[in-house]
Amino acid sequence: MKDLQYLDDFAVGQRFGSGHITIDAKEIKRFAAEFDPQPFHMDEQAAEETLFQGLAASGWHTAALSMRLLVESDFRPAGGVIGMGFDEFRWPLPVRPGDTLTIETEILEVRPSKSQPDQGIVKARMSTFNQKHEVVQICVGNLVVKRHKA
Amino acid sequence: MKDLQYLDDFAVGQRFGSGHITIDAKEIKRFAAEFDPQPFHMDEQAAEETLFQGLAASGWHTAALSMRLLVESDFRPAGGVIGMGFDEFRWPLPVRPGDTLTIETEILEVRPSKSQPDQGIVKARMSTFNQKHEVVQICVGNLVVKRHKA
Repeated sequence: MKDLQYLDDFAVGQRFGSGHITIDAKEIKRFAAEFDPQPFHMDEQAAEETLFQGLAASGWHTAALSMRLLVESDFRPAGGVIGMGFDEFRWPLPVRPGDTLTIETEILEVRPSKSQPDQGIVKARMSTFNQKHEVVQICVGNLVVKRHKA
Repeated sequence: MKDLQYLDDFAVGQRFGSGHITIDAKEIKRFAAEFDPQPFHMDEQAAEETLFQGLAASGWHTAALSMRLLVESDFRPAGGVIGMGFDEFRWPLPVRPGDTLTIETEILEVRPSKSQPDQGIVKARMSTFNQKHEVVQICVGNLVVKRHKA
């Protein structure tokens, strides 16, 4: 496992890969039943009649799995992966049962905080791919990162 | 339950409320163990030492619960609540064990699709509040909505 990274360890253009997670129909339905109970996430047959034309994972399920891949990747900011929010967030394609997801994180900007000298902000693009290397989620987020070892 | 809403049923300035969901420490930890395994979402004691200074829900947990509130609200676009993505997405404050969440959805823009005559886009701001009416999540999203009854 790589060392923890402080603000000055990050540089624009750095990229971090990830492991992979395969999602199945049972998990898609279970997540949907709890958080996004709509026909296209719950039932194969009902999903055929919808915009998705077949069972698809909730976008929030894709987002949550992408977070898991990020937390377990070599992107290891000291203090943890703490997102303040996103400037942009899109789901260009649905995630289907059997899809295998990976993510890539690219550093876009690194800047010290003016108000809080012990921390800074890293802006990063996180792309989630399926097994055909199609982008299923893309977002640009802002993370709080510690500047120095405490 | 209200009727389904087609594109022309939406107008700028409309607001939709929601029911409420209370989140507890057990659920915060269970969600985190599956999707966001970091100390500040998993363990009260470890969380004290972090930026959150106490157990806090994963932002993705807040997002997923907000989706559940939205799907069960009076905002009922025909074809389902289908988000393409967000122009803006922020978590201004952490969600804590025992917090009760509600959402409010406000329509910002309604426009027919140029390429697909049977559908359109609704831009909406979705705000998630805790029991003190503090905003814990705010986002501006774009949803695909059917124009007419099939």
